[in-house]
Amino acid sequence: MPEGIGEDPLILVSNRGPLEHTRGDDGRTAKPGHGGLVTALGGLAGHLEDAVWVCAALSEEDVAVTREHDGAAFEPEGGGPGVLLRMVELDPEAQHKFYAIISNPLLWFVQHYLWDLGNTPDITRREVDAFDNGYVPVNARFADAVAEEVEARGGRATVMVQDYHLYLVPERVRDRCPDVFLHHFVHIPWPHPDAWRVLPPVMRRAVFNGVLGNDVVAFHSARYARNFLLGCQELLGLQVDMDRLTVEVEERSVHARHYPISVDADALESTAASPAVADHERRLGEKRREHLIVRVDRADPSKNILRGFRAFDTLLDDHPELAEQVTFLALVQPSREDVEEYVDYLEQVRRLVDDVNAKHGTADWQPIELSLEGDFDEVVAAYKLFDVLVVNPVSDGMNLVAKEAALVNQRDGVLALSENAGAHEELGEFAVTLHPFDIQQQADAIFAALTMDGSERRDRLAASAALVRENDVAKWLSDQLRDVNELRGPGH
Amino acid sequence: MPEGIGEDPLILVSNRGPLEHTRGDDGRTAKPGHGGLVTALGGLAGHLEDAVWVCAALSEEDVAVTREHDGAAFEPEGGGPGVLLRMVELDPEAQHKFYAIISNPLLWFVQHYLWDLGNTPDITRREVDAFDNGYVPVNARFADAVAEEVEARGGRATVMVQDYHLYLVPERVRDRCPDVFLHHFVHIPWPHPDAWRVLPPVMRRAVFNGVLGNDVVAFHSARYARNFLLGCQELLGLQVDMDRLTVEVEERSVHARHYPISVDADALESTAASPAVADHERRLGEKRREHLIVRVDRADPSKNILRGFRAFDTLLDDHPELAEQVTFLALVQPSREDVEEYVDYLEQVRRLVDDVNAKHGTADWQPIELSLEGDFDEVVAAYKLFDVLVVNPVSDGMNLVAKEAALVNQRDGVLALSENAGAHEELGEFAVTLHPFDIQQQADAIFAALTMDGSERRDRLAASAALVRENDVAKWLSDQLRDVNELRGPGH
Repeated sequence: MPEGIGEDPLILVSNRGPLEHTRGDDGRTAKPGHGGLVTALGGLAGHLEDAVWVCAALSEEDVAVTREHDGAAFEPEGGGPGVLLRMVELDPEAQHKFYAIISNPLLWFVQHYLWDLGNTPDITRREVDAFDNGYVPVNARFADAVAEEVEARGGRATVMVQDYHLYLVPERVRDRCPDVFLHHFVHIPWPHPDAWRVLPPVMRRAVFNGVLGNDVVAFHSARYARNFLLGCQELLGLQVDMDRLTVEVEERSVHARHYPISVDADALESTAASPAVADHERRLGEKRREHLIVRVDRADPSKNILRGFRAFDTLLDDHPELAEQVTFLALVQPSREDVEEYVDYLEQVRRLVDDVNAKHGTADWQPIELSLEGDFDEVVAAYKLFDVLVVNPVSDGMNLVAKEAALVNQRDGVLALSENAGAHEELGEFAVTLHPFDIQQQADAIFAALTMDGSERRDRLAASAALVRENDVAKWLSDQLRDVNELRGPGH
Repeated sequence: MPEGIGEDPLILVSNRGPLEHTRGDDGRTAKPGHGGLVTALGGLAGHLEDAVWVCAALSEEDVAVTREHDGAAFEPEGGGPGVLLRMVELDPEAQHKFYAIISNPLLWFVQHYLWDLGNTPDITRREVDAFDNGYVPVNARFADAVAEEVEARGGRATVMVQDYHLYLVPERVRDRCPDVFLHHFVHIPWPHPDAWRVLPPVMRRAVFNGVLGNDVVAFHSARYARNFLLGCQELLGLQVDMDRLTVEVEERSVHARHYPISVDADALESTAASPAVADHERRLGEKRREHLIVRVDRADPSKNILRGFRAFDTLLDDHPELAEQVTFLALVQPSREDVEEYVDYLEQVRRLVDDVNAKHGTADWQPIELSLEGDFDEVVAAYKLFDVLVVNPVSDGMNLVAKEAALVNQRDGVLALSENAGAHEELGEFAVTLHPFDIQQQADAIFAALTMDGSERRDRLAASAALVRENDVAKWLSDQLRDVNELRGPGH
């Protein structure tokens, strides 16, 4: 358990909260969220007095629970993360605009360099309306909820805001509660200044000014922290210090920081040892060929699934001896299915899989096996069994798949890792590096990984696993808290 | 005429030279190139002793002339720019790879942020081959020709290299001729470091290392100079000084500089007064409606022609009172017709024009008139007659259309100018600013320009024209030469 955060109460803020309520035949269930972030933050908050987690009421049952508590914070039934929850009920139309037009795809695509700028996006009345009547009021609702919680705690608190949905929250909270300490973690890449020019000036200024309400803006890598400061300089004309990683706003210094997020190693290892995973392992083992290549991703253009399959196609062209000897198992989770760009992308993926299988497949061998199940036990089984894991994103804040897989793999599997994944800063030296736009290089690199000498595979995997275990999510959080305590200082 | 360049001879280097030879029924003709750059550089070189211009032999007749001179420098027939020419004969296949695969679209698209990174480009064997067997050997041929000219002049010279076709030239010239002073002008945007990650490391390092062979790397705007230095820092780990705009390479300092290019005001005004232009003016005048909107561009995705027409479509939707009152005359020059992306783009433009005309047009009114003639006299006539000039590029090194048009317009026309055109740094304060991705804003801005008060239009145009006349292409060149003389110093 990481150390605490001094004397001030903690307020966590994220769009998706640590649990979601559903209603079935046997009544209400509170289903905890997956992932290291929820575990880490929940663990921290549960450890502290008077902490609260502000999040959106996303399900119908979340809304029902929220109304039962008149919108106030409540102790979740059945334990949950051991922290008070304050769920914010949002107007469904505003929420749709906030989420499905502005956050995804507009901000997500800007931050991952995914727009086809000769053609997309078009900013029209629809996008301007979605910002003014979706992103702005939803952020205001969150900020007001946070401010009420701060005020209920006497006006002093440490507020930790998560991600790109909530860029406008910090400025508004600071306006209402000048004595808070505001910390914002951005879990996706922060692009260079020019990428923000896709947004109309009023929007990009709102984003930067919103984020500059923080005391600390944290990212997964140094590259993103530098890009953030460069944006403050280029787009707002602010004074930045690239050595100290600070920007001056009125009388305040805002600190850019970087902390690579990681996994909850104990929890993942325990899942990996479970019978459910063993069932999947058996099934995978029965049908495996000589070589198993695996990828695990949401169906998102940033993940570069298409080029991964094109590289595999090239690999099979270049190495006919691999025919019937290798399977590329792609565990792809459909994502953001109410956003047109995502529907189109998944359709492109399916078509390409069909094309590659038709071109190279034989009566009893499908080169690519595409699964859209998204079952985490199956994912962990695949982590244990791969010979090569392909992680080739165009751009990716961190990519926890690479870290999870390195931790539990049992076959001296090789990571083939994009230089544009945040994880490459840590794991690159033990991985085979992929250049995400270079089909031939990816094909060659995957071949090199498949044919790598056994002892080298073993050494690389062992080093990767040790690094992930050492730098786990608890360290990620404690590093942040150390800096919060230091920056807040005695007078804050 | 600008001042000279000290005592050293001058060697100019560009892919396209100051003239092109053709053969017709009445024998050989040497046709001088258009544009301020050729005029300015030719004027400079013609003024100096022992200057030579190294360029590619592009036409069949260029090759014939080159062979007649055994590849050596020669005095062009019929005067030309008053400078010796050295034309470099290139292997046609290498030249195709150099030009139509690497320079355009690969480098051009990288530098204008035009790739659709979720899908394009794919770096395959074709691109790697085109770099290794096209861009590299063509650059080497140029560099060797330059080095021979330097050696013929005793090993000392000032070499001025032009543009993105020749990034590898400076390093190779410096290796052979350590006493040269190398100056490189990049006429297109220099993007942020991440954009270069589209190229495989070996290519992007070759580009940066090639350019770092220079003493001065010059751009049209401060933004590009900063991006260049940031790239040296992020991609090569070099030490940069963002205040002095320098980067340290081994024992040398490389200076990034910015000089906004401009037009040859006298030559353009003389064209504007010509009978040929008057003919076009009469024709345009006969068919004009109340308002004339004009755009003049190559058919290039960077020019944002599609979004300009979508904005016009929105304008007509929003303002039915403009029906039959306004014509959008688009003088679009087909470009790079051997590059697939350009063929596709022009086809999209044609289709959109048909759609908008079908939607809004009437029996005797076509809202958009698309001309693909590329006749410069017609262009200048349109410059004189527009009420609003639309210059809305996604990204544009400078955009001389804005400057040319401001200089000769006769109707108190309003510039509607993208914030992403280099020209916006100078002319933005007198223009109506366009946000190139924002369709609604562009529609609103064009409407504001069309309905702007007469005296304000007059003042803005007069200020723009005065600025262009003051900062003409001669000043662009003399500013560079002043810095060359200063940086070269007495010991160089």
